Parts: sequence; C-alpha cells; structure tokens
Amino acid sequence: MRPEACLRRTPLKSASCNDLTEHHIDRRHTLAGWVDSRRDHGGVIFVDLRDRSGIVQVVFSPELSPDAYSIAEQLRSEWVIEVKGKVSRRPPESENPTLPTGMVEVMADEVTVLNSSLTPPFYIEDDVKADEGLRLRYRYLDLRRPQMQRNLILRHQVVKYIRDFLDERGFLEIETPILIKSTPEGARDYLVPSRMQKGSFYALPQSPQQLKQLLMVSGVEKYFQIARCFRDEDLRADRQPEFTQLDLEMSFVDQEDVLQLTEELYTGMVEKLTPEKKLIKPFPRLPHNEVMARYGSDKPDLRFGLEMTDVTDLAGETEFRVFLNTVEQGGIVKGFVAPGQGHYTGSDMRRLEETAKEFGAAGMSHVRLQGEGAPSNLSEDNFLLSPGLRMPVEWSRRLAERMGATGGDLIVLMAGPASRANLWLSSMRNYFGERLGLIDEDILSFAFVTGFPLFDWDENNNRWDSSHHPFTSPADGKEELLDGQELGGIESKAYDLVCNGSELASGSIRIHRRELQEKIFTVLGYSKEQVEERFGHILEAFEYGAPPHGGIAPGIDRLVAILAGADSIRDVIAFPKTQSGTDLLFGAPAPVDDSQLRDLALRITE
Amino acid sequence: MRPEACLRRTPLKSASCNDLTEHHIDRRHTLAGWVDSRRDHGGVIFVDLRDRSGIVQVVFSPELSPDAYSIAEQLRSEWVIEVKGKVSRRPPESENPTLPTGMVEVMADEVTVLNSSLTPPFYIEDDVKADEGLRLRYRYLDLRRPQMQRNLILRHQVVKYIRDFLDERGFLEIETPILIKSTPEGARDYLVPSRMQKGSFYALPQSPQQLKQLLMVSGVEKYFQIARCFRDEDLRADRQPEFTQLDLEMSFVDQEDVLQLTEELYTGMVEKLTPEKKLIKPFPRLPHNEVMARYGSDKPDLRFGLEMTDVTDLAGETEFRVFLNTVEQGGIVKGFVAPGQGHYTGSDMRRLEETAKEFGAAGMSHVRLQGEGAPSNLSEDNFLLSPGLRMPVEWSRRLAERMGATGGDLIVLMAGPASRANLWLSSMRNYFGERLGLIDEDILSFAFVTGFPLFDWDENNNRWDSSHHPFTSPADGKEELLDGQELGGIESKAYDLVCNGSELASGSIRIHRRELQEKIFTVLGYSKEQVEERFGHILEAFEYGAPPHGGIAPGIDRLVAILAGADSIRDVIAFPKTQSGTDLLFGAPAPVDDSQLRDLALRITE
Repeated sequence: MRPEACLRRTPLKSASCNDLTEHHIDRRHTLAGWVDSRRDHGGVIFVDLRDRSGIVQVVFSPELSPDAYSIAEQLRSEWVIEVKGKVSRRPPESENPTLPTGMVEVMADEVTVLNSSLTPPFYIEDDVKADEGLRLRYRYLDLRRPQMQRNLILRHQVVKYIRDFLDERGFLEIETPILIKSTPEGARDYLVPSRMQKGSFYALPQSPQQLKQLLMVSGVEKYFQIARCFRDEDLRADRQPEFTQLDLEMSFVDQEDVLQLTEELYTGMVEKLTPEKKLIKPFPRLPHNEVMARYGSDKPDLRFGLEMTDVTDLAGETEFRVFLNTVEQGGIVKGFVAPGQGHYTGSDMRRLEETAKEFGAAGMSHVRLQGEGAPSNLSEDNFLLSPGLRMPVEWSRRLAERMGATGGDLIVLMAGPASRANLWLSSMRNYFGERLGLIDEDILSFAFVTGFPLFDWDENNNRWDSSHHPFTSPADGKEELLDGQELGGIESKAYDLVCNGSELASGSIRIHRRELQEKIFTVLGYSKEQVEERFGHILEAFEYGAPPHGGIAPGIDRLVAILAGADSIRDVIAFPKTQSGTDLLFGAPAPVDDSQLRDLALRITE
Repeated sequence: MRPEACLRRTPLKSASCNDLTEHHIDRRHTLAGWVDSRRDHGGVIFVDLRDRSGIVQVVFSPELSPDAYSIAEQLRSEWVIEVKGKVSRRPPESENPTLPTGMVEVMADEVTVLNSSLTPPFYIEDDVKADEGLRLRYRYLDLRRPQMQRNLILRHQVVKYIRDFLDERGFLEIETPILIKSTPEGARDYLVPSRMQKGSFYALPQSPQQLKQLLMVSGVEKYFQIARCFRDEDLRADRQPEFTQLDLEMSFVDQEDVLQLTEELYTGMVEKLTPEKKLIKPFPRLPHNEVMARYGSDKPDLRFGLEMTDVTDLAGETEFRVFLNTVEQGGIVKGFVAPGQGHYTGSDMRRLEETAKEFGAAGMSHVRLQGEGAPSNLSEDNFLLSPGLRMPVEWSRRLAERMGATGGDLIVLMAGPASRANLWLSSMRNYFGERLGLIDEDILSFAFVTGFPLFDWDENNNRWDSSHHPFTSPADGKEELLDGQELGGIESKAYDLVCNGSELASGSIRIHRRELQEKIFTVLGYSKEQVEERFGHILEAFEYGAPPHGGIAPGIDRLVAILAGADSIRDVIAFPKTQSGTDLLFGAPAPVDDSQLRDLALRITE
C-alpha cells in the first residue's frame, strides 16, 4: 500500500556546512552544496564547500580515497556535489578562526557530482565587480552571493516578525484581490484586459485602500496584509513597478493608537533583528509645519542637526535685489549654519554654489564668520558676505545671532518661493550632513510627521487636491472649515513614519460618514455623477454602519534595505526590474502572439 | 515634542463583547460594535451588541440613565455604538447558557452613536436566505455574518500555521514577481500592457514555477511562498480567476522527502486547527494506475469503498453488441457492486440509467442479485440481467464472484474507451456513496497519488503532452525510454495530494540537467528555436550548477473550504468574483478611459 516507502532513503544532506563544529569531530556526515573554491596543496585537494548556511573545508587525499580524490581533481567552481566523510580537527597551522567551521574539516571518502557548472560570468563573492545589468541577467548566480542570501534571510525574518507581532495582537491577515476596478484617476494603474468580457479591463491595485476600508465596514476590526502593490509610473531612482507594503487597518481607534502600535512594531523588530542598530526612543511626533520650518522637508534626516531659520524679515532690510524680489513675491529667505566652515575661500564658495545649482537652486548667498566668539565680539571685517549682499556689521550681527552662528561658522542662505527654497535647502542640508561627517550610519532615527494639510493647491490643474488621499479625515474640529475659503490651512489626520531621510510609512484616520466624504469630493471638484460612478460603492457602504477606522501602510522593500544597509531596494528583492521596468532575466515585458491579442479583442496602434 | 500625547486617550474599547464573563462582574467597561438586535421589554431596552469576538447583552433603563435610555430608543440593527457601563449578573430567568457571555449583561449608563445604518438588504445571520448575487453585491454586510467571520479567522490561522511550520524547518518565504513574461503556451495568461514599452506585455503568473526553480539554482535550498496565481480560463464550477497556493520547493531531496514534509504539515494543521475532524494516518501512497483501476479517478473519494473491477474479458464472452463493440475497439467493461441494492425495480433501474446519462455515460448495464448468499448458491432466476444482456447462470455466477457480489447486491457495469468509462463510473461511484449514506462528513481522507505518467497523448493536437508540466522528472531508471516509442508508459516523479475527492496539491521532482530537459522539449515537439526563445533562460541556468530539487503546490482556497465545511471556495475568499469573473461589489472588469488606452497604444477591435 506504500510502494514509495521502499524508495525512502535519508535526504541527500545529513547536516548543513555551517553546522559542523568541534562537537561533530569523528562523526560521519553527508553534505551537499556548491564548490566555492578548490586548492591543490602537496598532493592534497582542499575544497571549500558552500551551501545556504555557510562554508566548510573538505579534504581529499589519495590515502583517504583514491576514487574520491580523482573525482575531486575534476571539480571546478560552482559544481554541485554530495560529499560523505568524517569530521576531524584541523591541524593547528590551518585553523581559521574567522570561519564558524574554521576549527574542523571533512575528510572526504566519497563524493558524487550532482551537476557541473560553466564558469560564471562573475565571481560569486560580496565585493562583486560586475555591473548590475550583468548581475540581473544572471540573477540566479547573483543571489548565491553571501550578502544577497543574508538580505533574503533578513527580509524573511522582517516579514515573519511583522506577522507574528500582529497575530499576537488579534489582527487577521486577509487577502484582497489583485484584479480590481480601475479608478478613473488611475493614470498609473496597470490594466488587465478581460478575455471573457472583451473591451473591459481589470486594474492592478496601487494599494488595497478601499478594500481594507470595506473590511472595516465588514466588522473585521483589525486587518493586515503583506500586500503587493503596482504603479505604472516613470520610475524614479530606486522605484519598482511592483512593490510590497504592510497594509494595516483598525476600527475604533484614533491617530495615537495607530502611531503607538507602529512604534512598538518597529522598535521590537529592530531590537530583535538588527540589535547592532541604535534606536532613538520614543519616536518623536513632529507636526508637519514644524518639520518644514526646521528641516525644509517632510522626511528630514534627524541623525544630524543643521536646523534652518527663516530670516525673510532681515532679508527685507537689505538692498539685495534677489532678496527684495523674493520678499515682494511672497517668497522666503531661509538658511542654516554650517559650524566651523567659515574658513571657506571664495573659490570654495563658488564650488558650493555650483553644487546648489545642481540641486536645482536658483542661487545661494552666504556669510562667512571669521574670528572667534559671539557675533557681538566680531568686527566688520570678520563678516565676509557673498557678493551683492552688502550690509552694515549690525545687520550681520543680528543675522548671526538669530541663526545661532558664531565666529568660524558659515551661514548658507537661499531665497525663493517657500516650497522651492525648502527643497533646495534640504538638499544642501543633507549635503553638509554628509560632508561634515555628521551622519552615524548605525543610527535609525525614526519620527512620526503628523498634522499634514488636508489639501494642497494643484498649480498644474488649478484646483485643490488631497495631500494624502480623499479618504483622509480632517483633524478634530476642523470639519467646519470645509465650508470656508482657507482650505489650505485645514489640518488632517494623516501621518508619516520617516527614518534617516526616507518615508517608511504613510497613513491616516479615515472618514467613515457619507456626508463628510461627499463634502470632500465636492471640494475636490467632482460632479455628483462622477462621485456616484467612481465612489458610489464605498459611499453606499458608509451608510450601513461603518465604524470609525484608520491605518498605516509601511513599505517593506525600503525598510529591509535600510536594515540590511543595502544601497538599493533592488538588493532586497529576489527578482527586481530595471529603471525601465524590464526583467533582464526573463526578458519581460515582451511582444505576444497575435492570437493572444485577438482573444482579447485588442490591436496595437502605432 | 510629542504634541499628540495630549490627544492620547484610551482606545474606544476597553474589552471585546465576547470577553465579558462572571469574572468581570461589577467592573465598568467600554464596548464598541454593532447593534445585532434590540428588544423593548417592560420599560427596559435590551440590545445584543456584536463585534468580531461575539455578542453581549446590553441593558438600558430610565433608572440607570435617562439619556442613554432615550438614545437606545432610537437604535436600529447594524448601528455602530460605543457603550459604557458596569457588568452585572443576569437575573436567573434570563441567563443564556448557549452564549459564552450568557451569564452577564452590561448595565449601560452611557452610549454614543458612532454611525447609523440603513436597513440591510438581508439579515446578518448564518442561515441567510439571500441569493449569492445580492450577498456579493453587499459583500461588506455578508462578511459580518458570524460564519463568514469564522471562515476569515480560520483562513488566517491556516496560513499562519503553514508559515510557522515552514519557518521552523528553515524555509525562506521569498516573494516572486507578479509581472512576468508571457509563455507562448500562455493561452490562459492574463496580459498586462506596458506603458513604458508600448506594444509589449507582462503576464500574470499561472504559478511561479520557473522562478522557484531559479531560486533553487540560486542556492536558496528551501523556499516557500503563499503565492497569488492567475488563470484566464472559462471558469468551471468553483474556480476563481485569481487563486492562492502555497508554493514550496526544496533542493537535495527526492519524492518521499517532499511527501513526508507535506504529510507532517497537513496532519499537524488539522490536529491543531480542526481537531473535530477525523484523520486517517499515515496518508496512503497510491500509484496512479492503481487508483485508476480501483476508483476510475486520480482524485478518488476514499471515505467509502465501492471499488471497481475490470470485467472486459467476461464481457467479451457475451453476445451483447455494446460489450463486443467496446472490446473490439480496445475499450473496457468495468463496474462496481452496490451492496444490498439488488431489490431495485425495473423502473428504479431506468431512473438510474437516466442519472448515468446525465453524467455523460453512453449507457449502463447491470445485474441484480436476488436471494441470499454466495453466487454459487444462487439459481438462474436469482440473476436479473439488464435487457440485451442475456447470459447463462454460469456466466452471471463468475461475474458476481469476480466482483465480490452476493445475493441482494446490485452490479453496475459500464463499457467504453478506458478514459470515458472510468469517468462515468467514478461519477456513479460518488453518486452511490452519497445515496447509500457511506460518506462520513467528519473524515478527512488524505492520500498521495504517485507515479503519474510523464506524458499523455493529446488527441486534439495529435501529439504527446506533459501530464504534469515539462519540468517534471521521469522516474528513476525510466530516462532511456525517452528514446523509445512507448512514451505513454513512462512513469514520472509527479504526485498529487487528494482529499475527499478533491485534488489539494500537485507537485513533482524536477529535471535539473540541461540535456534531459532539452530531450523532453524535443519529445513535446518544440523546435530548437522555440526551445531557445521560450525556455532559453532556464536551460542556461541549469548549466551553472543547478541542484536536484522538487516541490509541491497546495491550493489554499480549497483546503480552507474543506476545513471550514464550506460549499464553495467563494465562502473562504473575502472578495471573490463570480463565474463570469465579475466583481459585483466594485463592478470590475469595466471599460476604461480612451486616454488610458492611448497611453498604452491599444485599440479595442469589434
């Protein structure tokens, strides 16, 4: 009744390479893996055998087994072999304390070649020189590199930690569909033509936003999903057409409940999986307007200071055209102090201005403080102002005092519309953070940015747009303002989690009442018909007992990259695509048979 | 620095409804959930408050709080409320031992209406009468039904169990891309047009088959993924365009290693999550040809017997045209015994033949055994043969002996080409299993079917096709047969896990050597160019040290449905689609804006 039973035999491996230590000495083991390297030395062959766990040294000699030895002579890098032999202690001179298995070696008396290998197009080692194109083309070899294996393992651990953490807290993981309805805003939706309903299309989700809100209406109360999301946009540096996020939603909560759960999750994860990283606890909650003022960015790198000061009023006192025009046009003049950099020469400063221009800046002004001590102790010629900026020493002293600069410091100033000036300045701030060596790579500096505005003014389309998304709730007590004109000033219950200058997660407390949701759509300029057609189903759901709810969606790829210390998210994704969305290994996307298109009633237009 | 801190307050709930027991008596709690029902009784209002955990009774009376009482008067089903009050013991006459919270009630002194609700289109209860279309249209209400909540929870538990089980055994969960390359066989691929590379398409994976094999080439050794898969086929009963499978692959293993891991996984899961189910351990390993002979199906329901017997030789002795023609054309005559059903009348038999025809059968013959005891004790007139089948008693006795029939039994016989005769007979067998009440619904009768043929003859295209898929390895020692003519007889290392008549999982040991894989493609009739274009990347990968490997892919939807005792997998999927692949809630698939199609350089043809 169990014919297979007779086929039963021990698996090809009785141990993994990295398992073998002094405890195993004199025991016989069967190993299987890849030839990492082979050295012939005085009539003896040494093979470093590699599997997922690590490396162990295998010794072949004619005395041990002439057959095994003669096979070993043919072995080449990346061949797959099965080895049987006794574990023994290495002779003192060949011990290798840097390897976990460095005190032992396996005396091979039997070896089977399971598969051979051509010479790989690049070395299977961590400091690989090959360009990324080649690595992606041969991804299955690139993934053999120990660093990539560690990245895959860390990613597995991160996702496992998240699932265990949320399971313990009563969250249900629920799969939502990948084939959903395209939203007419969905300029960035990937479309999927239906064969059964020709001329109709599904879309791939940019996020399961509406589905998770409907799960709250369903009474699930605590939902999460490690969700694949898709965005068909021109890929900026380090974006992927498909990405993974932890999608999390809770009912009967307010903002701080979500933030505290998120903080617990990240704190516990980092302390367990990457204890070598330094965490700053508790995570600060920074109001959006405050981070914009202090750092000129809503995802500031908090590992260093270089905070900014608005000096528009002082700029208005000058005769400097650039400043005056900016002030007239309602712009700002703002800057930060680079401590101890007052020694820059004129040409240093010109180079610095070039850098600023590379960041897109229109220009840059500065004050170099010579000498020492408080501004009040500095004389006229201690202040070296950038050309065009001629002001009496009193002004320079007040500027320096306002910005907290002292003798020997450099003041960097930029002028322009608030949004752009902030953008340029935050680039310069990060540049100086690097340049002055202020960044401790071991620190994970998390923070929540809260109180984002509910609406941004969309200059291109000349209308109000949701800063987060249209389902975001206004802050408590701000609802009335929706009837007013000052829409730009309405605070929302949207929040971000940032870390080391990256946005790691974004979320909000949602609207759960139909009237309010409809009012938002009206503000956004939708007609009654558009609202009905595009959002009718969720508005209807809100009429059947929708509970208050909110959530957050942390990206997984970026998180793992930061924890792994990887430069790119491509290094923590098994089979990533290139900037142009190409899979270099399989060659996707690709043309398809006409018959496939005919089945879909589609034709390609030129 | 933590402005939110001041907003901090206790979550809206201090306990879940189902938590409250006698231990909580006299404690004050805050609950939140949905009004399941409201009863006014002698100036007191009783509300059954429901949340995900269950139900608790809340009492409102003017004495406790006039305000709360007057609000309670307005409450309707499915309104969302927050309730504060003291837990107290129910008066003896109103105790409800059927509810976990049936000994207590909450004396409400405060209530807040968080949201109102229209009257739902159907009652939120398990024995819902509404048709499925309406339930899917209002899925967010359907999911509030306790049974659906239990299904979602069970699904979460099943997937969590699988992940923990495999994590403990060193498997890495690795995400593979959803946007992959379309295989030209991919008649059933969903295509995704690329905007950046107009005229080119991605495809959604029918399974991550090649990707997981490449992960083995990458040295991952133990991989799994809860993977979403897609198949654009005309949906047979209870299929979905997107479905979920556990995708699992291991290196350095043989068939029995995979089967034992799978058996451990399912055994542990069932014993932990649905202990009320009866398991038959160990899972039998049944060779494919044996199950076809005994049950006429490769996914037999093993909860009952009714095994089949081939009587082609005896049929050949008759003068019955149907039998003789069948034998001449190389078909088979086969049947089974329905114990104790010999009492059927002629009209019973005609009805039974009608049933057989509904299963597609050309016809059905039978022998009814009257009287009692062994065939040898039965006289001529104890054998009632179906019309046309006139044979001497001796023949009937030999037939009955061969098939193990005795007095009082019914012998069902069918004739035809083996494949069809088996199909018809297995339908009849299942029909009798039901009809004779032989099926114990509490039993989970798992079994592995092994040794599938490597190739099937594809009559439509008049060529050999892979029974499993082209990457399946031949059985040990069968490789040479690939050069011969008897391709139909080559055994493979493909295996299925079946349970109660359903196929739950399918897998195989794969080919890991280029030459063998190429030979298979040649047998399947591919040209060198086709092989290179379609499978070049994986053949190339096999040349760089591919280890021996194999795996299995258990479906999740069907498994959860069986464990939950659900009639359809739609009852264990949060947002399923209909037979026509339509999402009735969102209305997908749907037409899209012309601009979206223009961006993709596509036009719809009529």
